Amino acid sequence: MSKDFALELRNILAENIRHYRKKRNISQEQLADVCGLHRTYVGSVERSERNVTLSTLATFASALNISVIDLLTKKKTTDD
Amino acid sequence: MSKDFALELRNILAENIRHYRKKRNISQEQLADVCGLHRTYVGSVERSERNVTLSTLATFASALNISVIDLLTKKKTTDD
Repeated sequence: MSKDFALELRNILAENIRHYRKKRNISQEQLADVCGLHRTYVGSVERSERNVTLSTLATFASALNISVIDLLTKKKTTDD
Repeated sequence: MSKDFALELRNILAENIRHYRKKRNISQEQLADVCGLHRTYVGSVERSERNVTLSTLATFASALNISVIDLLTKKKTTDD
């Protein structure tokens, strides 16, 4: 059960990073630059391929000006 | 800023794991067993020493029967 839970969390994170990045009209490369990460790393997070750490979550949240809770909360389709 | 943010998250996580573990009257060793982790690892998370991954967060949340959001949300002193 916790394995499925972990996969679901990765998917929620991937979707939210993509959502907030696009909302701010920035590319994966631009987000990577702000975060001090490699562009391919951001791509792999957006494909749910990464088991990111708490510090990387904090870096993404800070770069996108949202909270870590926002990053890990499944968005309703009606949210902007 | 994101570094401070990461440290704050570690502290919130540490406090919440300890809180919910004690609320369930289980030891670090018992929690570690349920999670498939080493007892000393649980201790180091409760001392804010670990940069845990998303899958470990999912494992702790599942073992404590709470959400990852609960684990990462600073508790008010009035909460139980």
